[in-house]
Amino acid sequence: MKISIPTILDIETTYSRIKPFVHNTPVLKSELINSMLDCELFFKCENFQKAGTFKYRGATNAVLCLTNAAKLRGVATHSSGNHAGALAKASAINGVKAYIVMPKTAPKVKIDAVNSYGGEITFCEPTLQARESNLEKVIEGTGAVMIHPYDNFDVISGQGTACLELTKQITQPDIVMAPVGGGGLLGGTSLVSKSLWKSTKVIAGEPANADDAYQSFKSGKHILSQNPNTIADGLLTSLSDRTYTIMVENVDDVLIAKEETIVEAMKLVYQYLKIVIEPSSAVPLAAVMENIDIFKGKKVAIILSGGNVDLGSLLFYLS
Amino acid sequence: MKISIPTILDIETTYSRIKPFVHNTPVLKSELINSMLDCELFFKCENFQKAGTFKYRGATNAVLCLTNAAKLRGVATHSSGNHAGALAKASAINGVKAYIVMPKTAPKVKIDAVNSYGGEITFCEPTLQARESNLEKVIEGTGAVMIHPYDNFDVISGQGTACLELTKQITQPDIVMAPVGGGGLLGGTSLVSKSLWKSTKVIAGEPANADDAYQSFKSGKHILSQNPNTIADGLLTSLSDRTYTIMVENVDDVLIAKEETIVEAMKLVYQYLKIVIEPSSAVPLAAVMENIDIFKGKKVAIILSGGNVDLGSLLFYLS
Repeated sequence: MKISIPTILDIETTYSRIKPFVHNTPVLKSELINSMLDCELFFKCENFQKAGTFKYRGATNAVLCLTNAAKLRGVATHSSGNHAGALAKASAINGVKAYIVMPKTAPKVKIDAVNSYGGEITFCEPTLQARESNLEKVIEGTGAVMIHPYDNFDVISGQGTACLELTKQITQPDIVMAPVGGGGLLGGTSLVSKSLWKSTKVIAGEPANADDAYQSFKSGKHILSQNPNTIADGLLTSLSDRTYTIMVENVDDVLIAKEETIVEAMKLVYQYLKIVIEPSSAVPLAAVMENIDIFKGKKVAIILSGGNVDLGSLLFYLS
Repeated sequence: MKISIPTILDIETTYSRIKPFVHNTPVLKSELINSMLDCELFFKCENFQKAGTFKYRGATNAVLCLTNAAKLRGVATHSSGNHAGALAKASAINGVKAYIVMPKTAPKVKIDAVNSYGGEITFCEPTLQARESNLEKVIEGTGAVMIHPYDNFDVISGQGTACLELTKQITQPDIVMAPVGGGGLLGGTSLVSKSLWKSTKVIAGEPANADDAYQSFKSGKHILSQNPNTIADGLLTSLSDRTYTIMVENVDDVLIAKEETIVEAMKLVYQYLKIVIEPSSAVPLAAVMENIDIFKGKKVAIILSGGNVDLGSLLFYLS
């Protein structure tokens, strides 16, 4: 079966559709970070997006693309992270019921977020099998439409709007970077960049401890993560066939970063940009820090994916 | 001797003078914080100001107002905090030498900041007497002009430009708030607000553990702080005659906040606004949290003073 992948036209249509519902997030710079790393960095701040994450773009688009009949039945997903909160909020705003299957070990801050947006949570054991079987039951019982966090045409199209917005905020950079987990943000970003900024290189940043995209990119085979373990908790997932295909066709390189560099990158952002980001957001900057020569003198745009960090964990990371 | 106090015209002229050198900082909102506190809050983000603090406005104005002869001799001050970095940076940008007397116990991050801006540091014992006598010696030796952190016409005029900018960013609020330490920011803010937003109440937020402005306001006498001790390290100073006079004439109330509420307010800002602020910035929000009835249903603008926090201390505060 041919995998459907959004075109730039799809992403532009998506942007018109979701624009009234999402924040046009700012782009920040730091002279001090630039002089430290000898390049010119532009940070697209999706940590300021609604629900604190770029995932609100994809979730909003998925909800708005439902048929009226489907809207009445609702949406469902399993997630322990940002997709859960983003889908719950996007659904609530549009009067759609959201059923979220969450492992009972999910961080309290994520559970609170889903609750505050009125999502209906089903708790399950923290295994993929339990998550999938519980989700199946919920869908059987409600007729809700499954919204996958990244292996979904409408979601990828929505995530691409962050880069589309960026193309209106800065002049063409030499390099654009996004973190890669499941590949939704990287996919959307690379599709937009390769279409509107043809000569710009697209580089993904990935934790060395969850390097399925790196392994896949280097080997030319779609490899899944084995026991990923990183503080960048939004990047534990592996690429799907769809996001793997987009990467192969549109991404120029994947760079990995060590855990300690990810923490150093977070500290730089807190100290000099004065903004709160989650560890996953810091991974592309960490990749820059580990590959100074590649970026020397270059103009580099980095998409900061989100700012949902548990303050308790933050203390642990930064100490 | 009559104390000179800036008028709105002085502050408008100041803004024209410093505008090319300072950031027009954004105003942020959080729907979640608003619904928690049952009021509508607007945060003027001086944590994004150059040098990470509103003090860059006053320092820039003071430097630009020097005579050419004075510019050649340089500026001097004693400071363990934000004024040191702000004055060093404002001086460097304008080709003026800055001599900073710092207690040898000053936080490393502040010392690093002054160094990175090329300020010339004289270290001394951590007493007011040692600071003043060392500053005198520096001034004798160099002929540099002393720039007081708040008891200075040009500095207060510069600090007022944050509120002047704010009047162009939001419609008139019911209340405008600033933290109060030495009273430079509160002074400038109140002068602007009483002139352009006549019916808006001006309320200061002050740590209960450094409550000289509160004691002075309530007693009608200029009282100095005795052994102030608060995590809001930018607010340890006492009002000068000049800033006391401005407060008496232009401020409607001073509210105090407990240390634990200041920490709670910081957490709210980190968690929901996704920005890094220093404890002093959180004091007005803490005062709102302790006085819900005063603010209920009101539109309230809060000036966040800065974002220069040592990550080590941050961990300590938030844990």
